[in-house]
Amino acid sequence: MESRIVTLLTDFGTRDWFVGVVRGVILARAPGVQVVDLSHHVPPGDVNTAAVMLEVAAPEFPAGTVHVAVVDPGVGTSRRALCVAAAGQLFLGPDNGILEAGLAAPDAQAFELSEERYFRLPLSRTFHARDVFAPIAAALCVGVEARALGPPVRDAARLERQNSERRDAELWGRVAYIDHFGNCLTNLSEEAITQAFPGTPPQDLQVVIGTHLLRGLSESYSGVPRGTLLALIGSTGRLEVAQFGTHAASRLGAAVGDVVRVRVKGSGLPPPDPIMEG
Amino acid sequence: MESRIVTLLTDFGTRDWFVGVVRGVILARAPGVQVVDLSHHVPPGDVNTAAVMLEVAAPEFPAGTVHVAVVDPGVGTSRRALCVAAAGQLFLGPDNGILEAGLAAPDAQAFELSEERYFRLPLSRTFHARDVFAPIAAALCVGVEARALGPPVRDAARLERQNSERRDAELWGRVAYIDHFGNCLTNLSEEAITQAFPGTPPQDLQVVIGTHLLRGLSESYSGVPRGTLLALIGSTGRLEVAQFGTHAASRLGAAVGDVVRVRVKGSGLPPPDPIMEG
Amino acid sequence: MESRIVTLLTDFGTRDWFVGVVRGVILARAPGVQVVDLSHHVPPGDVNTAAVMLEVAAPEFPAGTVHVAVVDPGVGTSRRALCVAAAGQLFLGPDNGILEAGLAAPDAQAFELSEERYFRLPLSRTFHARDVFAPIAAALCVGVEARALGPPVRDAARLERQNSERRDAELWGRVAYIDHFGNCLTNLSEEAITQAFPGTPPQDLQVVIGTHLLRGLSESYSGVPRGTLLALIGSTGRLEVAQFGTHAASRLGAAVGDVVRVRVKGSGLPPPDPIMEG
Repeated sequence: MESRIVTLLTDFGTRDWFVGVVRGVILARAPGVQVVDLSHHVPPGDVNTAAVMLEVAAPEFPAGTVHVAVVDPGVGTSRRALCVAAAGQLFLGPDNGILEAGLAAPDAQAFELSEERYFRLPLSRTFHARDVFAPIAAALCVGVEARALGPPVRDAARLERQNSERRDAELWGRVAYIDHFGNCLTNLSEEAITQAFPGTPPQDLQVVIGTHLLRGLSESYSGVPRGTLLALIGSTGRLEVAQFGTHAASRLGAAVGDVVRVRVKGSGLPPPDPIMEG
Repeated sequence: MESRIVTLLTDFGTRDWFVGVVRGVILARAPGVQVVDLSHHVPPGDVNTAAVMLEVAAPEFPAGTVHVAVVDPGVGTSRRALCVAAAGQLFLGPDNGILEAGLAAPDAQAFELSEERYFRLPLSRTFHARDVFAPIAAALCVGVEARALGPPVRDAARLERQNSERRDAELWGRVAYIDHFGNCLTNLSEEAITQAFPGTPPQDLQVVIGTHLLRGLSESYSGVPRGTLLALIGSTGRLEVAQFGTHAASRLGAAVGDVVRVRVKGSGLPPPDPIMEG
Repeated sequence: MESRIVTLLTDFGTRDWFVGVVRGVILARAPGVQVVDLSHHVPPGDVNTAAVMLEVAAPEFPAGTVHVAVVDPGVGTSRRALCVAAAGQLFLGPDNGILEAGLAAPDAQAFELSEERYFRLPLSRTFHARDVFAPIAAALCVGVEARALGPPVRDAARLERQNSERRDAELWGRVAYIDHFGNCLTNLSEEAITQAFPGTPPQDLQVVIGTHLLRGLSESYSGVPRGTLLALIGSTGRLEVAQFGTHAASRLGAAVGDVVRVRVKGSGLPPPDPIMEG
């Protein structure tokens, strides 16, 4: 498989030269490849956040894309490095759960990156993005097969995922990510909500987050008065809590992992106490 | 017209995956295009600032460049999306004034983006950079004509521009943008100043900003003692107030919209009160 | 020599359109070139830091790479602009020491950028990255020779380098750079340490920084308990002081220029007073 897009997701920041060097290694070995930054601002060492970001972003890319995800506090230890082939794409990263986006796919195949001939040598102990992941991304782009990189891995590290959960008349989920605008993305997909409350029109759904009760799902960020919290299905197909023109997460004091509950209007469930509207 | 450079200007920040996804959509549909970030750090929702940035940056790009500008608080409402063909370039963005750079050109032609066959479907309500503007940028790059995107628009939203103004013996303008170094760009072009004060040598001009009186236009940032405010014609051909080695805007407490006055030495006009030199 | 990678290192930040315009000028004149950001977050005007970054990053790029480094407080004055050909690469920047990475090479040849036909005209007084360095980078990419750019320069500005120094039984060096993770890179190369203490195993070396005594060189960031300071040879082949999971420089109050001392266990040298372990 030839790939022409390589994405990068790291906690390296953009202040230092690290990302530039990774790009240089890829481009020197696979000229003409398009290298795309997903983000380099994952909080240092935060594998969970990186995994969520990759899960949300990867499906937006075409088949054959190589995703390089490096949040790697265990670099230089015996932790393995992996290539995961899944859903027509390739994922490279340490074996610490960051590649959950690939590993969760039904057709996922994982391989250990053990073939040193694809490395940039000598191998440093601290910069495997440069020495392992970048040259292997380039190798994949110029036609090397995932299975040539090393032996199959069947016990790759997986993240505990917080799934949505039916509790009595409610669907419970969690805040999974807070974006730059302060929008709170949850792990509740539109599909899960439709299955939980079949036939209920969006305006009859209610969302409880903290002490706030949001009535109905909105169609857009700006369909409500400025300063009003709202719930809507965001661009990733998941329930989002947002506020037009301000930072919803700051206003709510919301954090990743907070419970978000969906219910139907008139279900007789008690409101949050104290109740705060939108 | 085939275009090989696409620029991106947004308020998305670079912490999340949004810009990466936009790039992925463009590159998947128009491989080999060069995607260039103008900035993703427009203050959230600040259409005016984005419009100024696009106005200043667009002329630096070659004919055929496609500029994608998305600061779009109205996304998901009935606001239109536009393509503006102007001065040999193409501008894509919401119909909220952000495309002023194109619309102000004498040969501007605007079209509504209504042809869904060029969209990425299904269309989300909140991420038209991904679903509308990116795929249409790619379509333009591979040869689709602007007029094929939808019907002509003759009432595109325009921004109120603060023009320079002659008041008695002075030329009045405004701070239009404050850059990363703290330099205050004004809306006063070198041409406007020359027309207002024909034949006056730069060293005989004076600039008043707040309570500061700056004597003469400088040739460079460092042509004055460190810590001195100075006025000069900046790289965009406009009057700028700067300070060598520090952040002029912070020192001045200057903000976008502040009045900047140009006059001639010995014009008998009263100095600012209290007067502070350089 | 044809080059296909151009790197950019500046203090422009990424908030404004400056970097985008520089990229546009390069791509318009040398389509298909790969432009790679090293960093745009050099502290404004900090030529020394930029020089260290270029020195560390340049060797990671292939032969023929063109490095454009612009931290240029003297722009618009009579300071010269240079092209340095060294070690198979090309370096462009102002003559203020920023190109030390190239100038220090045994085969370095410097040329003044005086041939205006390669400039973008009219030449501004304040944005030579756009008007001089970008078009010349493009010219070099499409085959113009360094020597065609202007006359040879034999007295290019050089930075005072703090070299490592043997003092009694210790090797003294300095903190040269503090990265995004808080790791303190020193100017002590693995080679210099091996030459100073031949045959000493890494676990018998000790590193003194401030009042801290670090026992032995570690293999990786995570080979020690969380919260422990450690010393190791980093990915640039230099001694680094780091701390797993936190920002070592903040904990140490370390700054560029601070002394770092290497000694051998049992050398009888007094410990720092008060002594703080790891």
